[in-house]
Amino acid sequence: MNPQITYETWGTLNRAGDNGVLIFTGLSPSAHAASSPGDSSTGWWEQMVGPAKPIDTSKYFVVCVNSLGSCFGSTGPASVNPVTSDLYRLDFPVLTVEDIARAGQEVVHSLGIRQLYSVVGASMGGMTALAHNVLFPQASRALVCISSASRALPFSIALRSLQREMIRTDPAWKDGHYDGHGPVQGMRLARKLGMLTYRSAAEFETRFGRERIAEQRQSGDAFGIDFEVESYLEAHASKFIGTFDANCYLYLSRAMDLFDVADHGGSLEKGLGRVGAERALIIGVETDFLFPVKQQQELADGLAVTGCDVTFETLASPMGHDSFLVDMDRFRPVICDFFECPMNQPGRLRRVAT
Amino acid sequence: MNPQITYETWGTLNRAGDNGVLIFTGLSPSAHAASSPGDSSTGWWEQMVGPAKPIDTSKYFVVCVNSLGSCFGSTGPASVNPVTSDLYRLDFPVLTVEDIARAGQEVVHSLGIRQLYSVVGASMGGMTALAHNVLFPQASRALVCISSASRALPFSIALRSLQREMIRTDPAWKDGHYDGHGPVQGMRLARKLGMLTYRSAAEFETRFGRERIAEQRQSGDAFGIDFEVESYLEAHASKFIGTFDANCYLYLSRAMDLFDVADHGGSLEKGLGRVGAERALIIGVETDFLFPVKQQQELADGLAVTGCDVTFETLASPMGHDSFLVDMDRFRPVICDFFECPMNQPGRLRRVAT
Repeated sequence: MNPQITYETWGTLNRAGDNGVLIFTGLSPSAHAASSPGDSSTGWWEQMVGPAKPIDTSKYFVVCVNSLGSCFGSTGPASVNPVTSDLYRLDFPVLTVEDIARAGQEVVHSLGIRQLYSVVGASMGGMTALAHNVLFPQASRALVCISSASRALPFSIALRSLQREMIRTDPAWKDGHYDGHGPVQGMRLARKLGMLTYRSAAEFETRFGRERIAEQRQSGDAFGIDFEVESYLEAHASKFIGTFDANCYLYLSRAMDLFDVADHGGSLEKGLGRVGAERALIIGVETDFLFPVKQQQELADGLAVTGCDVTFETLASPMGHDSFLVDMDRFRPVICDFFECPMNQPGRLRRVAT
Repeated sequence: MNPQITYETWGTLNRAGDNGVLIFTGLSPSAHAASSPGDSSTGWWEQMVGPAKPIDTSKYFVVCVNSLGSCFGSTGPASVNPVTSDLYRLDFPVLTVEDIARAGQEVVHSLGIRQLYSVVGASMGGMTALAHNVLFPQASRALVCISSASRALPFSIALRSLQREMIRTDPAWKDGHYDGHGPVQGMRLARKLGMLTYRSAAEFETRFGRERIAEQRQSGDAFGIDFEVESYLEAHASKFIGTFDANCYLYLSRAMDLFDVADHGGSLEKGLGRVGAERALIIGVETDFLFPVKQQQELADGLAVTGCDVTFETLASPMGHDSFLVDMDRFRPVICDFFECPMNQPGRLRRVAT
């Protein structure tokens, strides 16, 4: 296989080749992190990446890659296998977070970046950023891991396994050999469960309470949508369906389960000992139950003992795992600090004691 | 409709007719809470109900009802509609927790119980026990609500709504007109999600970690069972399938979403103001995220202001919502105290200040 990786860039690489920032994404986003002259549509991290934004593209050369195995331009199960001229589908080899990291490094290399200022990722992207630093310890001077972990916990594995089973048991999946949108209902269920794990009970209570939808919107079906919270999940799932390939979803979801930094050297300590970054920013969110904050604490503590200059921030965002996408008021100053924005307030950072 | 309610009893009603204890169940159990001379099989609350057990059947006349709408002898969607001679299926009327409570009170009445010593329930059974006390304030002198709530939260509603959607979108459901086991795959998914909401991430981490199943047990399927936690869920779901009717599951699940004690009088305060019990025991578990402990706190506080003598216990069980079924070491002494077991250690109870 000779995979293709799609990426987008913002800003300009400096002469020294050391102002690059590489962003790895979570499971579902494309490489379009922010709008640009070439594509003015809003990116998935629009408020974080751009001129005079926390990751300031007037200062840094920012690169975001579409993950290997995804379906937004990079090679994955939904790509054509040149050997068979059919899609790869389940003939795509087992995908690991490390594979995604290696593919990202190929992009870095091809762009002439000598050493990255930082690699950045949230959720699966945080795992990938960590893997990148373990595999290429000299490639980046800093590491930013948001709402992520050094390995998947069994509860999170079980939740993702169940999402995959929803897709695989939809008759329209056809063992991966679907045409068109494929297992729409399985994807709908998986996305709804995803949304439940990405947000928090506290946020749902504040937003929806026990509100019912208006009578004219009700279907009359005894088990149809009645509460506002059900309507919210339906709307989000409907937006997702048709935009993401089901087989790609299976591969990327599984890659997260398989990730364990202890596979590098035999233990968590040895794996983290391979990280080459001089500085690290580890952020967790109190209401995240998919990647609970103790996992970020473990990662921060593990990195600190290797001599890395670690900043660990726990944010009180009520929006759960997805907070990095929606709670800019809490995330902006922390990211700003680390990337030394002009609006940086010195002395804000809390460092982990070694 | 002239519904039939199946129940089991243990012990003997005293002459005064005031030593009865009525147990309402969670969504899935039958009336068989404990073994008896008539049925020696282990009951679902075997360690809690029996001679010299916390709910001591040598002292109390214990009654457990199979919920109206369930499928273990009581009338529900899987029962024959005498008008059509077909099963009720979705012609069964909308079921509420209050309906289940009223059906339980019919049993109490028919058994000649003058006044109950206590009504007891956990999870959905706790909602039903509360509804029973609101509807029949003179029927019981005490109320025990375990891992329950005065109303369903939107996060819990969303989780149950998703379980129902898994069942309804299984083509084998056939809009409720299935034969035989019906939507086996939908029920499998729903039960797995149920198990995830009934236990806790902490317990899973201790029990399973990242252990893989033995190679000879692996299917070879790229997305098949690999981790022990996946195998555990599969085993539990397989046990459930074929034992519980899918339409009954839909009705009972929905009844929990619909329950809101505020429907009785217009507010939580007014609803709880109707409770007639002199004493109440409210138990919550720290790791329960389906019925989080703040809901039991709200219930305990709300009852205390009505003048009810409330005991509120928060237990540190790691097993989540299901702790009342499995963590006997923590539950036994609390239940014992309230039911004045011989092994009672006086002074243990903590009462809520009014």
